[in-house]
Amino acid sequence: MARATTSTRPPGRPRSGVDATVFAATLNAVHELGYAHATVDRIAAAAGVAKTTIYRRWPSKGALITACLVDAFGPAPLTGASREEIMSTAIRWIAAKIGEPGIGAAFAGVFTDAVNDSALRQILSTQLQDPYRLALEEALDEPENRVLFFIDVVVGTLLHRMGMTGEPMVDADVDALVEMVLRALP
Amino acid sequence: MARATTSTRPPGRPRSGVDATVFAATLNAVHELGYAHATVDRIAAAAGVAKTTIYRRWPSKGALITACLVDAFGPAPLTGASREEIMSTAIRWIAAKIGEPGIGAAFAGVFTDAVNDSALRQILSTQLQDPYRLALEEALDEPENRVLFFIDVVVGTLLHRMGMTGEPMVDADVDALVEMVLRALP
Repeated sequence: MARATTSTRPPGRPRSGVDATVFAATLNAVHELGYAHATVDRIAAAAGVAKTTIYRRWPSKGALITACLVDAFGPAPLTGASREEIMSTAIRWIAAKIGEPGIGAAFAGVFTDAVNDSALRQILSTQLQDPYRLALEEALDEPENRVLFFIDVVVGTLLHRMGMTGEPMVDADVDALVEMVLRALP
Repeated sequence: MARATTSTRPPGRPRSGVDATVFAATLNAVHELGYAHATVDRIAAAAGVAKTTIYRRWPSKGALITACLVDAFGPAPLTGASREEIMSTAIRWIAAKIGEPGIGAAFAGVFTDAVNDSALRQILSTQLQDPYRLALEEALDEPENRVLFFIDVVVGTLLHRMGMTGEPMVDADVDALVEMVLRALP
């Protein structure tokens, strides 16, 4: 699979050792048990920390999963000589990320919980989606509603494929996704 | 919202009164409580039936949700004078369905469970996706892999929007989705 270059850790406050341990235990639990069975109880046990240690940092399972995804994704590689190249690089980057163990299941699960949880939608919007949305608006010179549409299309398509097949999308279909989205860029 | 015409019940074995009661209780529980909290226990209690009555018909929550979605969707309206019209009608139909109470949350939830559950993926593929896939392959004269790609794009996009906003996609964005997919039809 033609994976995008590995992202580096975002600048800013370095995460503590506890955060790193909990994030690794979270992705592992989601990968091994599935989203529904990866409870905060089980994650805490696997990480070797008290449940209160987790709830002091993240008020809910959804908030923990969101923080875990933000950490795993890091900044998107929004580089390229043209809007087409930037978009293409970004799509291949998120496709590779969603294929990593636990990530697709965690991502799909937190969106599912969010359908009926407005507090979680707020966390997802502001902590996970907004940084990428703002960077994409600037890099592509596209308005907010178009960038949100492209995020729905790309992430939604990749997650639906994971749910139906249990596997990341194969290269030929990622190519088709890139081609379709580039044709929709005005 | 420009909704597609309401589908009629599919021909074949009429569903029993118990099925209808359980399906209504299921969608209502998912709508009110969210997918994770809509347990088989709670659905049975709301439907006024024994839990064993549910498990005799559907071996798992995922199987129940799938049957509920098959019942709620009915056959897709795959009519039109051209492939473009057929595709456009089908997209608007599923967009309206996913906007109905409980449907988007049930749909997103069952895909999430399926990421780590191969038995459920099998149920979803054969009972929910295959009938639409086969009908679309014939109506559009497109091969299986292309039809699966379009299903990922359309359903994935609509469900991602529900997860991020808690609301169905607005008409202008459904229009953009239709336009994008039609351009990708060869």
